[in-house]
Amino acid sequence: MTEPLRPGATIGILGGGQLGRMLSVAASRLGFQCHIYEPGAAPPAGHVAAQVTTAPYEDLAALRAFAQSVDVITYEFENVPTASLDALEALRPIRPNRRALAVSQERVAEKDFLTGLGLQTAPYARVTDLAALEQALERIGTPAILKTTRLGYDGKGQARIMTSEDAPAAWEAMAGAEAVLEGFIDFSHEVSVIAARGLDGSVACYDPGENVHRAGILHTTTLPARLSPGQRTDAVLIAARILNALDYVGVMGVELFVTPQGLIVNEIAPRVHNSGHWTQAGCAVDQFEQHIRAIAGWPLGDGSRYADVVMENLIGSDVDRVPGLSRERNCQIHLYGKSEVKQGRKMGHVNRVIRGLT
Amino acid sequence: MTEPLRPGATIGILGGGQLGRMLSVAASRLGFQCHIYEPGAAPPAGHVAAQVTTAPYEDLAALRAFAQSVDVITYEFENVPTASLDALEALRPIRPNRRALAVSQERVAEKDFLTGLGLQTAPYARVTDLAALEQALERIGTPAILKTTRLGYDGKGQARIMTSEDAPAAWEAMAGAEAVLEGFIDFSHEVSVIAARGLDGSVACYDPGENVHRAGILHTTTLPARLSPGQRTDAVLIAARILNALDYVGVMGVELFVTPQGLIVNEIAPRVHNSGHWTQAGCAVDQFEQHIRAIAGWPLGDGSRYADVVMENLIGSDVDRVPGLSRERNCQIHLYGKSEVKQGRKMGHVNRVIRGLT
Repeated sequence: MTEPLRPGATIGILGGGQLGRMLSVAASRLGFQCHIYEPGAAPPAGHVAAQVTTAPYEDLAALRAFAQSVDVITYEFENVPTASLDALEALRPIRPNRRALAVSQERVAEKDFLTGLGLQTAPYARVTDLAALEQALERIGTPAILKTTRLGYDGKGQARIMTSEDAPAAWEAMAGAEAVLEGFIDFSHEVSVIAARGLDGSVACYDPGENVHRAGILHTTTLPARLSPGQRTDAVLIAARILNALDYVGVMGVELFVTPQGLIVNEIAPRVHNSGHWTQAGCAVDQFEQHIRAIAGWPLGDGSRYADVVMENLIGSDVDRVPGLSRERNCQIHLYGKSEVKQGRKMGHVNRVIRGLT
Repeated sequence: MTEPLRPGATIGILGGGQLGRMLSVAASRLGFQCHIYEPGAAPPAGHVAAQVTTAPYEDLAALRAFAQSVDVITYEFENVPTASLDALEALRPIRPNRRALAVSQERVAEKDFLTGLGLQTAPYARVTDLAALEQALERIGTPAILKTTRLGYDGKGQARIMTSEDAPAAWEAMAGAEAVLEGFIDFSHEVSVIAARGLDGSVACYDPGENVHRAGILHTTTLPARLSPGQRTDAVLIAARILNALDYVGVMGVELFVTPQGLIVNEIAPRVHNSGHWTQAGCAVDQFEQHIRAIAGWPLGDGSRYADVVMENLIGSDVDRVPGLSRERNCQIHLYGKSEVKQGRKMGHVNRVIRGLT
């Protein structure tokens, strides 16, 4: 499929969480219907989708039926098994492509790819046993952080190493999984670029936002980020280089550390990204619609920023603050329809619009 | 129910067209689920709703099951039979209330209500036969317009009377239905106020927009409207008086003619309104979310305008312009997911954001 998808077409989304939910809403604005594929019952995205399939990611028959019912497949969840992706791709295009998924699913592959492009990352080493970890610590030094190479998400599967004595406990925390040791970066702050690439190869980036984390989870994203004009240009060029190298189609989140030695790539995510939720309040076309436009083969939309915005995540019991938030001026509330409140669970977010720009 | 509805609650919507569709999307942002009740198959709102009931408005059993599955009932369609409303209201609150529906369903009742509040309307007379029409024409003069008192929508069931000789043909066009004769108003332009009233009696109005019609259907709404500061205040006061008098809860569209003798009320609609679609591009909280907030007993949201906007409807084959529109800057596209293009059918709209306001 290289022709633009026509209104009335169906978009398949792997994963039914809040990202799938907001993608489905954006797709509806362009006249598309969405079919959500999600193993868990009663997914948030199902409240605003035309169709839901509830089945495991390993159920090839369900995946094939799903693929046959849609025109193009995208995802909010990146850890779909390879055999399942093979089955889907035999029937319909998957966007962003498999290479983007493969690179971002595995931390070492990601860093090898990024450094291969001439981009800066934290110093890193693959670690498969305690001896390798100790060797890597000698080269990289402490403090450092040990992470499983796969399935990392919101600070899970990570262990800090403050001195070499922490090594055995850190390795134990990996539970035998392959890991990567990353050196600490002395950065002043973190920014992220939400970048999009269309089927025609055109690239558009949103203005970078500045991220603050709490307990390993994104807390706020503030627009504009503190960046010099030169850093702002660098940030966009880095993102564009990554997208072009992957022949990427869709929206990607690129997290960057700001250091005196330049911008260092922390992580890339081949999907709409939490740090891009502010675009719902500050742009004519938000990151969700931009992603849908890209994977549908439409021209990328106008993502220029017309307001200063602070996005704040509502984590766990933060959602109890909604009655008060609903009385605040300039405050856009987005709740995800999750019935159970759990510690660390993303329940919603608010976008505070600070002022309009002329 | 006077307590605010909690996230997770279900809102029932009578009517599954584009208004129901955009209401359902807005409800999802606040963590609500929607259940759509619509006689027609495959309603546009069903693509973004948790549940759909397909049944006629006369099916009391289906209506009761629908009511029992929701926490509050609202509507995008105003011509639901009285017996059906009785059945629904016995089980769940209907917001806006029955009085607002009764007044707006019948043109003479509406004008009696408005003039009873001391507001100006076009001169009008109830017409039940040709003799009454001729008598009314003597008093009101020509040109005038004859309309059925019920079920009027987008210029249907209307006949213009340029001279008294047109009277018999105009009366025939009513097909025996009760009608109202309205005198022409010499107005410079039409504006509309999208007004909201909360369960606590608070009122909030969006900035008035200026409407241009084509062939009896809204073509564009432009913000800001051409109004003097005094007219702007009058417009808001008129809307607030109407909402308070009806003990209204929800969003209402109030169409006003601008004349040298002041603002004249053309029509009121007890629901979100086509001339309020611009709020999706110019306000932190749009008319759809404002309506959901009101009927859910939440505080009204911040509807202050931060951009100049022109909303343009895509009627019938206008939708073929979407590929070109998708390349325009500052252009927000909203398609309704209707599969069949028909002449005069509202297929979507675009909001063009002209500039940000500080």
